[in-house]
Amino acid sequence: PRSRDLGIAPGILKTGQHNAITDVQGVLVGQVTLVDAQDVRTGVTAILPHGGNLYQDKVPAGLYVANGYGKLTGISQIQELGEIETPILLTNTLSVPQAAEAIIGWTLKQPGNEQVVSVNAVVGETNDSRLNDIRKRALKAEHGLKAITSASSGPVAEGAVGAGTGTVAFGWKGGVGTSSRVLPAKLGGYTVGVLVQSNYGGVLQIAGQPVGEALGQYYLKDALDSEVADGSIMLIVATDAPLSDRNLTRLAKRAVAGLARTGASFTNGSGDYVLSFSTAASVRRTAERRDEVSSSQSVPNGSMSPLFQAVIEASEEAIYNSMLKATDTCGTRSDTGKANCVKALPLEQLKALLTTSN
Amino acid sequence: PRSRDLGIAPGILKTGQHNAITDVQGVLVGQVTLVDAQDVRTGVTAILPHGGNLYQDKVPAGLYVANGYGKLTGISQIQELGEIETPILLTNTLSVPQAAEAIIGWTLKQPGNEQVVSVNAVVGETNDSRLNDIRKRALKAEHGLKAITSASSGPVAEGAVGAGTGTVAFGWKGGVGTSSRVLPAKLGGYTVGVLVQSNYGGVLQIAGQPVGEALGQYYLKDALDSEVADGSIMLIVATDAPLSDRNLTRLAKRAVAGLARTGASFTNGSGDYVLSFSTAASVRRTAERRDEVSSSQSVPNGSMSPLFQAVIEASEEAIYNSMLKATDTCGTRSDTGKANCVKALPLEQLKALLTTSN
Amino acid sequence: PRSRDLGIAPGILKTGQHNAITDVQGVLVGQVTLVDAQDVRTGVTAILPHGGNLYQDKVPAGLYVANGYGKLTGISQIQELGEIETPILLTNTLSVPQAAEAIIGWTLKQPGNEQVVSVNAVVGETNDSRLNDIRKRALKAEHGLKAITSASSGPVAEGAVGAGTGTVAFGWKGGVGTSSRVLPAKLGGYTVGVLVQSNYGGVLQIAGQPVGEALGQYYLKDALDSEVADGSIMLIVATDAPLSDRNLTRLAKRAVAGLARTGASFTNGSGDYVLSFSTAASVRRTAERRDEVSSSQSVPNGSMSPLFQAVIEASEEAIYNSMLKATDTCGTRSDTGKANCVKALPLEQLKALLTTSN
Amino acid sequence: PRSRDLGIAPGILKTGQHNAITDVQGVLVGQVTLVDAQDVRTGVTAILPHGGNLYQDKVPAGLYVANGYGKLTGISQIQELGEIETPILLTNTLSVPQAAEAIIGWTLKQPGNEQVVSVNAVVGETNDSRLNDIRKRALKAEHGLKAITSASSGPVAEGAVGAGTGTVAFGWKGGVGTSSRVLPAKLGGYTVGVLVQSNYGGVLQIAGQPVGEALGQYYLKDALDSEVADGSIMLIVATDAPLSDRNLTRLAKRAVAGLARTGASFTNGSGDYVLSFSTAASVRRTAERRDEVSSSQSVPNGSMSPLFQAVIEASEEAIYNSMLKATDTCGTRSDTGKANCVKALPLEQLKALLTTSN
Repeated sequence: PRSRDLGIAPGILKTGQHNAITDVQGVLVGQVTLVDAQDVRTGVTAILPHGGNLYQDKVPAGLYVANGYGKLTGISQIQELGEIETPILLTNTLSVPQAAEAIIGWTLKQPGNEQVVSVNAVVGETNDSRLNDIRKRALKAEHGLKAITSASSGPVAEGAVGAGTGTVAFGWKGGVGTSSRVLPAKLGGYTVGVLVQSNYGGVLQIAGQPVGEALGQYYLKDALDSEVADGSIMLIVATDAPLSDRNLTRLAKRAVAGLARTGASFTNGSGDYVLSFSTAASVRRTAERRDEVSSSQSVPNGSMSPLFQAVIEASEEAIYNSMLKATDTCGTRSDTGKANCVKALPLEQLKALLTTSN
Repeated sequence: PRSRDLGIAPGILKTGQHNAITDVQGVLVGQVTLVDAQDVRTGVTAILPHGGNLYQDKVPAGLYVANGYGKLTGISQIQELGEIETPILLTNTLSVPQAAEAIIGWTLKQPGNEQVVSVNAVVGETNDSRLNDIRKRALKAEHGLKAITSASSGPVAEGAVGAGTGTVAFGWKGGVGTSSRVLPAKLGGYTVGVLVQSNYGGVLQIAGQPVGEALGQYYLKDALDSEVADGSIMLIVATDAPLSDRNLTRLAKRAVAGLARTGASFTNGSGDYVLSFSTAASVRRTAERRDEVSSSQSVPNGSMSPLFQAVIEASEEAIYNSMLKATDTCGTRSDTGKANCVKALPLEQLKALLTTSN
Repeated sequence: PRSRDLGIAPGILKTGQHNAITDVQGVLVGQVTLVDAQDVRTGVTAILPHGGNLYQDKVPAGLYVANGYGKLTGISQIQELGEIETPILLTNTLSVPQAAEAIIGWTLKQPGNEQVVSVNAVVGETNDSRLNDIRKRALKAEHGLKAITSASSGPVAEGAVGAGTGTVAFGWKGGVGTSSRVLPAKLGGYTVGVLVQSNYGGVLQIAGQPVGEALGQYYLKDALDSEVADGSIMLIVATDAPLSDRNLTRLAKRAVAGLARTGASFTNGSGDYVLSFSTAASVRRTAERRDEVSSSQSVPNGSMSPLFQAVIEASEEAIYNSMLKATDTCGTRSDTGKANCVKALPLEQLKALLTTSN
Repeated sequence: PRSRDLGIAPGILKTGQHNAITDVQGVLVGQVTLVDAQDVRTGVTAILPHGGNLYQDKVPAGLYVANGYGKLTGISQIQELGEIETPILLTNTLSVPQAAEAIIGWTLKQPGNEQVVSVNAVVGETNDSRLNDIRKRALKAEHGLKAITSASSGPVAEGAVGAGTGTVAFGWKGGVGTSSRVLPAKLGGYTVGVLVQSNYGGVLQIAGQPVGEALGQYYLKDALDSEVADGSIMLIVATDAPLSDRNLTRLAKRAVAGLARTGASFTNGSGDYVLSFSTAASVRRTAERRDEVSSSQSVPNGSMSPLFQAVIEASEEAIYNSMLKATDTCGTRSDTGKANCVKALPLEQLKALLTTSN
């Protein structure tokens, strides 16, 4: 089920139509899942800010690194210029080069890009080596390309799909999840959507309930293994609010508050990143706007707070969705080469816990 | 009451003796409360990393700015050199210069500092203008000085005292709060202590319970006033773990996860800062260590995670303490000049809410 | 003389009318010089982005910290919100609180600011303790206030005045200096102005000539005293180009290239900071623009480079002016309490050096 | 010739034996040059901090982004953990994925890395599309691998080789260059080495002489094309001084001062990056140091300045070497597909200019 099917609805704001990042108009998501034999459990998820020529019509973007133990590419150019010019791909840690190759190849081939000689590919990752033989590097550029070209609007597949195929969160199966929030009209009526690839740890709490402790599975439980909570999470934030790159960075930063509310321990080995972008036409960096002094709209600093509240709520819920939609998954541990199974959150026990507390 | 008196004990780790920042050996806290007539409701809180000559024996330090709408002084030097060389003072927004003057004056007069010509004063603040006539600037350098010289170890006064005298959190009375955590011996046995000056907003949740919603007081309730959740919070983190300044910065960053769990909305106008320092003798920057190549101990990156968990838990609890120990307070709003009263959290209602949920 | 009087004209762009920061229309500069007895050699310099209500009509701003060993206040709010809301004051290291007090007091009193309860005072400093008894803290808030209220457009006094009264650069007398550049009309016709407070060291070169070595005075000359080149420099950059805060930060960053060309060694103890702001009406953050979604103009990333070239040139020349206009100055060393004299650059020798090389 | 062969010897400190990054003991450099038909003019340069297992024995590292218009990978993990765990590869902009793949593949295969599931590949680049058909992406992972495995100590090939095969600087042929400085024994006796891949622009000056203007080729000459100075530069800094990652970052930052002295305009489209690392055994992050609390030596803040001076000088000279050792090169422009030739600096004219000025 999704989070709301269980009555778990973080926060005070309403969701969009699909309760998904694609509620932000124009955003497209494509996913390729790679499952093969006993050892390949990985995939790739593409997020496209819009369906046009992303290189020619760049989108303003922000970035926040909560913990930088990760391999996200494209960082410095996003920070310097405040924009994204390609699809965003999420995949596993060791397949980042293949995904970047896919983005570059695709970009060079788009009509209108015949003279392009520089591409800032944006690839995020988490480490799915607990279920996937990551050293095998089964994922190729062609898979990334297919994720991009198959991207669509509408509902988004969640759980053990795409970049979430082999991920683990809080010791249970993690995956891809998404959610959205829509501001009341008097606060601008903007939509904020979040998509996550969850693969991290801590002491799980759901809607404030100490689920991890109740189920006996949490970081430091035995004070033995300080690495058990590692893993990483990528959060992608989209909005149709016309924001400056600075305010997009501030928006990205707030997504981490949603992450914190799930019980994340933000461990040393967890690469926790948030990327954000605006799809608003009035801030899009078209050829014209990039060539001469021009006007852009923007939400002023003083009106940002409702958007901050929205991204916090949607991030928390997207994470719950990523776990609740995931299913028991068996694969191979990369470090030992042995079979390994990770269970999904036990729904019946979870329902019982939530019922008791309300 | 304190948080634990109500059974609210965030997390999985144990507290130190006083459940206070002073559980980190050597840390001293001093507070001066300024209440006068109808309009002065302010104060100052001093945190001293140790009782010696702080300028000669500097402590490694870290800093994290969650939202920079605030006036914290000393930022660039902490970041550049990774150290603090003075007491830390917390006060109200417009009295930062007076507090900085107190620190400079005190430092110049310490024996051994006769030739000191540069002092990096560290003053944090939140805006208590909802109860205090902040434009009057009643707080003087002498009050800051007294907070420093009266600092002591042991239990710390909480609630509407010192820098928390006139603060407001989530629409209820905020203030000063503190908490600590001690790691199990096998994880190093280190202590992490937190002291907060709470003056911010959002949608209050306590131990995961939607207290703000249940009591009908929360940010965006009427979707009318986007500024209502503003305010700020300062979090000071101390530890006896021997940490590099880089890892102290990472530790500071995690405190914000505790803040997030209380329902903070991280609004535009909220200055949210975390300062951290280590009291360990093996990393103290003594005259000798500052003069020549020398050895320092440090906890490696891979062993930081339990400390991260500790600071998250202690930050959440310190905030609850700041509110639960606060009492109804009346004063004057600076912007209107009118009388204003802010109530403390209603304990009976809160207890009822928490009982129902467990 | 000024730099150009000696034929030293760094770069390829033209200067503005006064070859001063005040060539950027609307910018005002005021200075108070404090010379008393044998031991007071200090002062304060005020830079006002415009002559109106700075708090109500804020200017977008950028900030770059080349080396953070300094006490610049207001940092986090400039970075978070991308704006300055007060005059900028430059003074000595230990008088920062008094200058901040002046800014706060002045701001609270401006018509229209009757309900203001938060002020982000911006005070920069360098350490003039080689000529000024800095521990005496002779500079008071009233001096800062006078610098603000006496600020005017037109030519700017340079050398041993205001905040440059007691500063030292490369072992010679430093001080306040200024310069400007105007872009050709086809590149936008914008003006960039720089004002510096020079108090740093290294191996002086002027227009590429190794002046420091030729005159036998430079950092590491005797490989004895690693602190001799310390000191700091503040650079204030103004432009009438309509820039985003992000591009203002990039502009600030480039000023350091001008500093580098003078032979700066960027030593550990040198606080090297650049603040920049735009005076363009089309980006000014008026009450209206701060209250609702609005349009702002901005120079696109791709057109920033000529402005970068301009700020590099003006920064280099402003530094030369600060030294060439300075005069021999005697005062008191703060650390020893003894009399100390610092000579201005020897003009005749310098002219001889420059002639030979051309 | 090299810079010193023409009497151009920036600064006051002595060079190491080879006046190369390899003067820092243990550092290895390998280069693969790819020249094929009319259109392939590219290559790859590998820098290995030491010849052992880099993943198991990581080196502390720093990073500075002067202008982030570039694709350097590995940024966030270097910043978060303060270390490098792989060889560093430099190549062209669109071949970053292939180079990253080479690093990952090589790392996974090293003895002792059988269980490694995460690799932070560090690949820098500049855009050689003015001479190389960059869209063809001729450079493959095998070339990167060969650069790594062929790396050696001793003299380093400079000019149009490896990653510098197709680069352009100030309108003349750029390339790979290197230089070093050794501190006097009383300042620690440490060595600092720099290797650059020069591909940027501005108004060239050599040892302070306005070479670009004298030869009639410089940025903004005709005030027509604001992009002409774009291009980028990568600077790699090695030292045997035992430095903390924070001080390595500060060291990296200073390299930009050397770059500034060559007349760089730091244009919008120039990706200007500095990576630094320490080879000192006393700070190497061995398995032991990464597993438990341990001691590391470090040069204190107060003794960093001579190292700052060293890196400034070596950076300036490495750039001159990159240009002076480069030779006339013809290839193909990627954007137009037409043949293009870029001349090396005209040595006779340059010598004449330098003679006149001395």
